[in-house]
Amino acid sequence: MHVSVNAAVSADGKLSSRRREQIAISGDDDFARVDRLRAESDAVVVGVGTVLADDPSLVRYDETHRTSIRGETASPPARVVVDSSCRTPTNAAILAGDPETYVLTSDAAPESRLTALRDAGATALVAGEERVDLTDAFAAIETHGIERVMVEGGGELIFSLFKAALVDEITVYIGNTVIGGRDAPTLADGDGFVEAFPELELTSVERIDSGVVLAWHVS
Amino acid sequence: MHVSVNAAVSADGKLSSRRREQIAISGDDDFARVDRLRAESDAVVVGVGTVLADDPSLVRYDETHRTSIRGETASPPARVVVDSSCRTPTNAAILAGDPETYVLTSDAAPESRLTALRDAGATALVAGEERVDLTDAFAAIETHGIERVMVEGGGELIFSLFKAALVDEITVYIGNTVIGGRDAPTLADGDGFVEAFPELELTSVERIDSGVVLAWHVS
Repeated sequence: MHVSVNAAVSADGKLSSRRREQIAISGDDDFARVDRLRAESDAVVVGVGTVLADDPSLVRYDETHRTSIRGETASPPARVVVDSSCRTPTNAAILAGDPETYVLTSDAAPESRLTALRDAGATALVAGEERVDLTDAFAAIETHGIERVMVEGGGELIFSLFKAALVDEITVYIGNTVIGGRDAPTLADGDGFVEAFPELELTSVERIDSGVVLAWHVS
Repeated sequence: MHVSVNAAVSADGKLSSRRREQIAISGDDDFARVDRLRAESDAVVVGVGTVLADDPSLVRYDETHRTSIRGETASPPARVVVDSSCRTPTNAAILAGDPETYVLTSDAAPESRLTALRDAGATALVAGEERVDLTDAFAAIETHGIERVMVEGGGELIFSLFKAALVDEITVYIGNTVIGGRDAPTLADGDGFVEAFPELELTSVERIDSGVVLAWHVS
């Protein structure tokens, strides 16, 4: 599987404010870039924190671009939420309509919530005891034909993916604002590393909108 | 006064790990760039958190560069620590030897600590009640001939300077590693903004060492 992380941050590395409200960090050209990245992916992945904070539908992508690389009959990229306790609301936008939505969860999820999400149309896959075992869970969706995933946050999921050594590349739009806040979410939260920091290789630097997009390959 | 902020962060916007240990983020070419920036400044400024975590001496700068722009007799850049309660240890490296060190503090500092720092050779300036009033404090050092300052962190001070609308430009080296951690210090910590976010203008993008240096003008 190929795992690509994409996010937009402020100049000080924040995904949003301490209130977790969505802030317009990038602009139209970057949105178009993200829509092309989604179109190249088999699935778009977010953590449950992002679902609870932003209620994204994850249905937008560049259809023309997808058709050009996958052909006329290509289905839209699937949606995936990583959700250890099945906290995703049954009326979440990520569950509504097409395409298929996978909920990656753990043994910690109450049976009733698991059933509720399945009844709401999700394909729930259980891997891990207290938290989702991301290696096993990603292997599980790979058996459903998902080879190339794009992760759109949040910072807790992104850190967990780095910790599990699952990230192949990371692309970050850095915008022209300062958000600040010791409690504001950042690109990689979690417990953080204190040694054996993941090493990256800067592969691309491109000015887009009023910011810059940096891309790294993970060594 | 002209206030320039300079810092090195990981790809995920962290100044160091949650343990506050110094991590080699940039390399020799960026160190040389920073030494030139220091040489162009009348003073190098840090917050007391940085003094307590890293014990920097702040005596290194590019002497040849300073001589070339200030002349043969130019004195080294002064050192400034922003320290509301005078927590700077009297044996801190920032107080040792030359050049002059200013401690910007507030009425909250115990008189005994103020005296101790003055006895240790610091020029202590009091501005603000509970915390340093940065506008007044910077005006005070300006009367000592300090017109151009370079702020080297940490994230609490940088946020406070943005909040006080004192920052003119910010330069950030972004390195090729991931530190992570919801409790790791970032480029701008403090309470954070929730509206009226400071706006920047990206003025320069330059690849240095294995990372990239971004420079913004503050609108």
